[in-house]
Amino acid sequence: MSLDAVLSRIDADLPHALDRLMTLLRIPSISTDPAYRSECARAADWVVQDLHSMGVQAETRATPGHPMVVGHHRGDGPHLLFYGHYDVQPVDPLNLWARDPFDPVIEETPKGRVIRARGAGDDKGQFMTFLEACRAWKAVHGSLPCNITFLFEGEEESGSPSLVPFLTDNADELRADIALICDTAMFGDGTPAIVTMLRGLLGEELTIRGPSRDLHSGYYGGAAINPIRVLARIIAGLHDDMGRITVPDFYDGVPELPQQLRDQWQGLGFDPEVFLGDVGLSVPAGEQDRSVLEQVWARPTCEVNGIWGGYSGDGFKTVLPAEAHAKISFRLVGTQDPHAIRKAFRAMVETQLPADCTIEWHDHGASPASRMSIDNPAFELARAALAPEWPETPAYIGAGGSIPIAGHFKELLGMDSILLGFGKDDDQIHSPNEKYDLSSFHKGIRSWARVLDALTRDMTRDA
Amino acid sequence: MSLDAVLSRIDADLPHALDRLMTLLRIPSISTDPAYRSECARAADWVVQDLHSMGVQAETRATPGHPMVVGHHRGDGPHLLFYGHYDVQPVDPLNLWARDPFDPVIEETPKGRVIRARGAGDDKGQFMTFLEACRAWKAVHGSLPCNITFLFEGEEESGSPSLVPFLTDNADELRADIALICDTAMFGDGTPAIVTMLRGLLGEELTIRGPSRDLHSGYYGGAAINPIRVLARIIAGLHDDMGRITVPDFYDGVPELPQQLRDQWQGLGFDPEVFLGDVGLSVPAGEQDRSVLEQVWARPTCEVNGIWGGYSGDGFKTVLPAEAHAKISFRLVGTQDPHAIRKAFRAMVETQLPADCTIEWHDHGASPASRMSIDNPAFELARAALAPEWPETPAYIGAGGSIPIAGHFKELLGMDSILLGFGKDDDQIHSPNEKYDLSSFHKGIRSWARVLDALTRDMTRDA
Repeated sequence: MSLDAVLSRIDADLPHALDRLMTLLRIPSISTDPAYRSECARAADWVVQDLHSMGVQAETRATPGHPMVVGHHRGDGPHLLFYGHYDVQPVDPLNLWARDPFDPVIEETPKGRVIRARGAGDDKGQFMTFLEACRAWKAVHGSLPCNITFLFEGEEESGSPSLVPFLTDNADELRADIALICDTAMFGDGTPAIVTMLRGLLGEELTIRGPSRDLHSGYYGGAAINPIRVLARIIAGLHDDMGRITVPDFYDGVPELPQQLRDQWQGLGFDPEVFLGDVGLSVPAGEQDRSVLEQVWARPTCEVNGIWGGYSGDGFKTVLPAEAHAKISFRLVGTQDPHAIRKAFRAMVETQLPADCTIEWHDHGASPASRMSIDNPAFELARAALAPEWPETPAYIGAGGSIPIAGHFKELLGMDSILLGFGKDDDQIHSPNEKYDLSSFHKGIRSWARVLDALTRDMTRDA
Repeated sequence: MSLDAVLSRIDADLPHALDRLMTLLRIPSISTDPAYRSECARAADWVVQDLHSMGVQAETRATPGHPMVVGHHRGDGPHLLFYGHYDVQPVDPLNLWARDPFDPVIEETPKGRVIRARGAGDDKGQFMTFLEACRAWKAVHGSLPCNITFLFEGEEESGSPSLVPFLTDNADELRADIALICDTAMFGDGTPAIVTMLRGLLGEELTIRGPSRDLHSGYYGGAAINPIRVLARIIAGLHDDMGRITVPDFYDGVPELPQQLRDQWQGLGFDPEVFLGDVGLSVPAGEQDRSVLEQVWARPTCEVNGIWGGYSGDGFKTVLPAEAHAKISFRLVGTQDPHAIRKAFRAMVETQLPADCTIEWHDHGASPASRMSIDNPAFELARAALAPEWPETPAYIGAGGSIPIAGHFKELLGMDSILLGFGKDDDQIHSPNEKYDLSSFHKGIRSWARVLDALTRDMTRDA
């Protein structure tokens, strides 16, 4: 009865909810680029104001990087912590965007209406679904449904350097019964999904130096070492012909998929041809003896995320460059130890360096994989609450992306996380022309209202 | 007697000659970058005005690219064609320059005074030595010494796309008894050198495409092909463990060095440790069974001059990029056929492309190696004329760089070229902080006066 009123209120208020999201999307809060520092601060302030507008006590908290936003609503019943991130990915290559990434618009597409902008799907559109559900609840009931702590960070897209110290320093304030995180996708086109397995992430940047300066390839070519060629050899050697990663002891801690999970995934009706076909591919490029779903959910990877050296402008320059650079990351699973892998990776690369070359490393963060304990009853309460909203049965799935926060919540605050998001595989997050389906936004808000209702009623009764 | 007067005039006019060079160096005539198109035109106009100022009929001639400058002085005696190029290399990485590359300055260094600017050594400072010699000659004698055609191009640093059509269309106007080119270096610190062997150059740019858009490495990593990794494998396979290039039939037409030349080079006192040590290296990185001098003068190479793909900004972006790019060039020797090698290279790369990848090629020019017929008596006349100016005996040497113009002059106009330049190995051409020694400039002008005197007197007597 009261849930119905909240859902009606959500439907009626959708135009205003969209206006609010559009305002937030106009702030270019690119956390990885120092040029956007003040924009990140502006996004944090906007979130604080939005929490205030629904009566939540909230403030920014300074960190050595971008600010955290923390808010509290003291209420009865269970204590929930909701987490989102207000920062977004860079937008390059800008020329591949059909319009300004920070001038959001609602577009009609063959698959329905979408919100087009950087951050629409990752994570602004997603976390606003929770805030809008809270706002509707407050409008109907005069208060939020239970004790809720809000936490937003602004460094998720740049390795979250301030996160662990902040969680450690504020553990007592932030500890809750369970965390809610809205930063994941549905399964396929319409199956709501709670992610229970996440890959970890290890980021490295390396610079190989050879000659003391850029050389003329005519005068020195043939005698001088070329750092780009050295780097190419190193990268080429990171995988063997089977697609396996060659870093020593890399597969320590990589579990085989339990038969039960393998069976459940089998039942999802995942079509690898469609998954790859959507992005112009036809042949799985990873470990040759693994299924595509295993490759992206349950197996570790090593990717080159960027490479640069020498002349890349128009025309041609016969330079033999002094330096070459790469950004390389590993996705980790099971109990793989990011720190041991970093050490083994660096050692392997360094033994391959030829004479006259030096290497410089830059650490871009490390987090282990995480796996939720779904025997916590909140998981089944949430999954059941979602069912009336969606045509397909809600599922537990894996996810290839890395959301280290879930691991940190478990490790530092002893909380499990319900990772419930409404993204689609074609949202093009981290890519040009990112979008978020209008239906994800609308039904996402309604879904959170249902989950809040279920957790509040049932967790209160249990308590 | 009259030569002495010209040399005295050169000495007396040096401050003004420097002023003229500084004015030319202030024009950022970067030919490879379309943004500098009008600056190239400005440099061409400047050269025309400078020729006018010494009574030479000159004009710019339009091409599809940057203009040619052609001038004629009709006189008695032999017909010489002088060639130079008014365009310069790009200046990136700009942050490695100690000052504005286009704000030239005379600097005191431990090795003497230098002219510091982009183009000081390649090729503005060099070709101005010839123009200043002509100017002094005219001041003393009222006329230039013989029939001289002047040709300056503005595309030498960007593959000279307009050169061959222009030479072909204007062959009758440009054909002379011999060409003079000032775009090479001395041997070591003080041995004047005429270059008689030049490597050819083949330039290629390739783009490898995989997924139809940039992907999130969490969602797709492990299943989607990464074009950077594909490119790295291709580059890693271009050389075998001995440093030899793996393109099929690549070494067809690569001659063994004649014993006579090997002996002469032996006598040059070349020190590979100093040559490499000057640029921070200690171990020759090329074909393991060849000397350093062979590696840079007489052996072909394959170099990666630029590579880029994915994210290269500050911070980290977990992107799995849709594209990766490289600029790759080959230095050629003997009778290696650039067109056959281009074909074999492209075929070899294309056979290595995995499923779902496509490749796009961009042709950045091709020119064969060239070798002068030093039995033409002009070579010995020039070499003898240089001797009084310099402490060391003038030498015939090889050069690793590619000056395709010499090959074109031979092939299209039937002319040999005397490649006489006054650069130093440490001029940092194509690199940040390019310079030209003031002594190269001054003694270079005097050297050309001596060569003009010798060729005019002796070639006239021969005719």
